[in-house]
Amino acid sequence: MSESNASATRITPGNALRPEDIAASDVKPSEAVGEYALRLGDDALILAQRLGWWISRAPELEEDVALGNIALDQIGHARSFLAYAGHAWGKTEDDLAYFRGEDEFRSCHLVEQPNGDFARTIARQLVISQYQFTLYARLMNSADDTLAAIAAKAVKEVDYHRDHARQWVLRLALGTEESRRRIVEGILLTWPYVGELFEDDDLVTGLDGVAVRPSGLRQAFDTDIESLFAEAELEVPAVPFAVGGGRNGRHSEHLGYILAEMQVLAREHPGATW
Amino acid sequence: MSESNASATRITPGNALRPEDIAASDVKPSEAVGEYALRLGDDALILAQRLGWWISRAPELEEDVALGNIALDQIGHARSFLAYAGHAWGKTEDDLAYFRGEDEFRSCHLVEQPNGDFARTIARQLVISQYQFTLYARLMNSADDTLAAIAAKAVKEVDYHRDHARQWVLRLALGTEESRRRIVEGILLTWPYVGELFEDDDLVTGLDGVAVRPSGLRQAFDTDIESLFAEAELEVPAVPFAVGGGRNGRHSEHLGYILAEMQVLAREHPGATW
Repeated sequence: MSESNASATRITPGNALRPEDIAASDVKPSEAVGEYALRLGDDALILAQRLGWWISRAPELEEDVALGNIALDQIGHARSFLAYAGHAWGKTEDDLAYFRGEDEFRSCHLVEQPNGDFARTIARQLVISQYQFTLYARLMNSADDTLAAIAAKAVKEVDYHRDHARQWVLRLALGTEESRRRIVEGILLTWPYVGELFEDDDLVTGLDGVAVRPSGLRQAFDTDIESLFAEAELEVPAVPFAVGGGRNGRHSEHLGYILAEMQVLAREHPGATW
Repeated sequence: MSESNASATRITPGNALRPEDIAASDVKPSEAVGEYALRLGDDALILAQRLGWWISRAPELEEDVALGNIALDQIGHARSFLAYAGHAWGKTEDDLAYFRGEDEFRSCHLVEQPNGDFARTIARQLVISQYQFTLYARLMNSADDTLAAIAAKAVKEVDYHRDHARQWVLRLALGTEESRRRIVEGILLTWPYVGELFEDDDLVTGLDGVAVRPSGLRQAFDTDIESLFAEAELEVPAVPFAVGGGRNGRHSEHLGYILAEMQVLAREHPGATW
């Protein structure tokens, strides 16, 4: 009865895996796939660090819970992607989160951007969640079963994040003069970091059928933003794109501070298993 | 068929209410009950603020998720207690969280204490979760149906928090020399703030049958701690109790900083409904 003996944690696209399952699996990605998984995991990890700050600090207590839950979802996605990436080099998710230097992080500049006020955080959430939603929806069809399985689980949660951000953009844009002024400013501050998300490079073009080409996500992103902005009576700002480079380890001045806070405890006593 | 017409959000001890239900209810507590609910809500709110800091900063990514979830549970309890307290004075949970001064907060000194390292946070969690667990278990029998309903829901979550802290105390105490040194130090730093939790005063003695007398919780607390410490080969430290006063609005120097961070956004534009 070989079918009934199939492992419960076997990695298949239809199987929603926990990070622990991925850490325990013996599926070893190539270094290129590992690099790609780092990009996905680092985006989620750094975003979670930024969002966690909002617990008990949002303009409404109810909203704390929402942003806190989004942060915890993102930590879950980060753990899965980093656990998988780690198999390429015999490292754990914690090795990768706590013991890499700034130039080894592969996150985009968008997620490093400061929280600012609540509207700026929502503008950042709008962009990253629209991007992640389309990305994960396509990654579900990846030829790499582990990436496909992680994406199939994450896309459902990110769909909620996306809805949350869209509802807040509408509420702020169509609310008071003050709330509208703030979301317009938040969008203006966020938009320079949009371009980097959709840039192809040799790594992703070399992983045809496994990785999702960022450039291919742009049209869906633009369509979704345009329909939302039409409803919210907002305009896509015409701003120059900031210099990117996050995918190659070149980061803004913000990441160093984020990592210092995030890594200090684990680094105080390297190797201590406490 | 009057039974089937009973409101789904009617406040009864067996009915697990959401904070929104309590905010929408027209049950108005006396000012004394409101004061009592403030104490419960403020403990949870300030604890959540401290715990939220750990998101993406715990010594393991898995642990981030645990502490983040505990923080969100505590925010949920705080919202319910503060929503109920607010009805005594025509205020909302957000009014109470974001627009009270330091001397109007009724939280104990324990929850204001710094996170320190992970072991110190766990020592604080051990004490507060043991205390909250016994407190809520008794508050389920309160003559006040709303307090009883909030407690009946909260006790299940706090039971998990308590188990989480106990497991970590064991793991740290019986782990490495370093982990043991740290939990011993964390307990030593935490114990001066235990005494305040179990002090009676005129408010609680005047609410006989409604409030739970703190002094009556002490024996169960001591028994639970002693059995855990026996297993963990730890001793209850003999330290003098710190000066309390949190229930009357006298706080340590820490609360001012916590509130400054927590309230700045809401206070920047008072009354703005953005």
